Amino acid sequence: MTEKVIYEGPIFTLVKEDVTIKNKVYQRDIIHHPGGVGILCMIDHKILLVKQVRQAIDLETIEIPAGKLEYGEDPLECGMRELNEETGYACSSMRLIQSFYTTPGFCDEKLWIYEAIDPIEAKEHLPQDEDEDLHSFWLPLEEAYSKVLNQEITDAKTIIAILYAVAARRE
Amino acid sequence: MTEKVIYEGPIFTLVKEDVTIKNKVYQRDIIHHPGGVGILCMIDHKILLVKQVRQAIDLETIEIPAGKLEYGEDPLECGMRELNEETGYACSSMRLIQSFYTTPGFCDEKLWIYEAIDPIEAKEHLPQDEDEDLHSFWLPLEEAYSKVLNQEITDAKTIIAILYAVAARRE
Repeated sequence: MTEKVIYEGPIFTLVKEDVTIKNKVYQRDIIHHPGGVGILCMIDHKILLVKQVRQAIDLETIEIPAGKLEYGEDPLECGMRELNEETGYACSSMRLIQSFYTTPGFCDEKLWIYEAIDPIEAKEHLPQDEDEDLHSFWLPLEEAYSKVLNQEITDAKTIIAILYAVAARRE
Repeated sequence: MTEKVIYEGPIFTLVKEDVTIKNKVYQRDIIHHPGGVGILCMIDHKILLVKQVRQAIDLETIEIPAGKLEYGEDPLECGMRELNEETGYACSSMRLIQSFYTTPGFCDEKLWIYEAIDPIEAKEHLPQDEDEDLHSFWLPLEEAYSKVLNQEITDAKTIIAILYAVAARRE
């Protein structure tokens, strides 16, 4: 497999690769991304969410707390840190409920979704990244599910976390 | 907003944008993508899926039938075509069940998930794209749900379609 780096940035790297399909060689543009972590954090049937403006889509989104991995970083540790940075909440442990690829047609970004076990307000609140402007809030799970169905929540990882929580409660 | 094109490829365009957050200017690398369509196609509680090798993640995946939009193309028409090309099935109409952003932190790719209404084998089977090598098969929905929970199905749009179908059946 031949791989040629086209662009290396702070978040992802763009490469061009040769691939062989049915004995013919094609080129594919591929984004290498270190992956990330999202956190399903619930207390009393309410889910913790964050609002932020996403530059790529020029919209304010509602998402679960989440963050990018550093290469080689443990997803669980990343999840603990991001939960505190983005919301001021902490937990003693987390349980992996899902890992998946956001868009495997051209990108290797993998996301891990953890459920925070017994979340509480953190004694020490880590500062937000200075290039982020987030606002966290709690929403009853059924309202969050309604926002998935009526397209107010349009972020893939957040939809997966909410549908997972709803399906789990109905089992 | 300043936007500078870094790379233009057949699938997506990479740009660098200035963004202002809390009165400071930062740069963001952003992928512009035309978006795509996925199809939830079910007959008798079985779901139609496709296997293929995804070069970006170097793995064989199980996904719902799906394809990339051309800029300006109607998602519903794209869905009808891709369903036929990838599986040989057709339907008279489709119902939008979800649209979402795959990874809004750095990419504007939006996916539309349609449910095929009364799918049947197509009289005329459109050829697959020559740079694709796909194999379609049917799986009981509950087995597909198990494959989500045990991480055999790891594609975001496919997880969303399956969780949606499971949640809808339990309502």
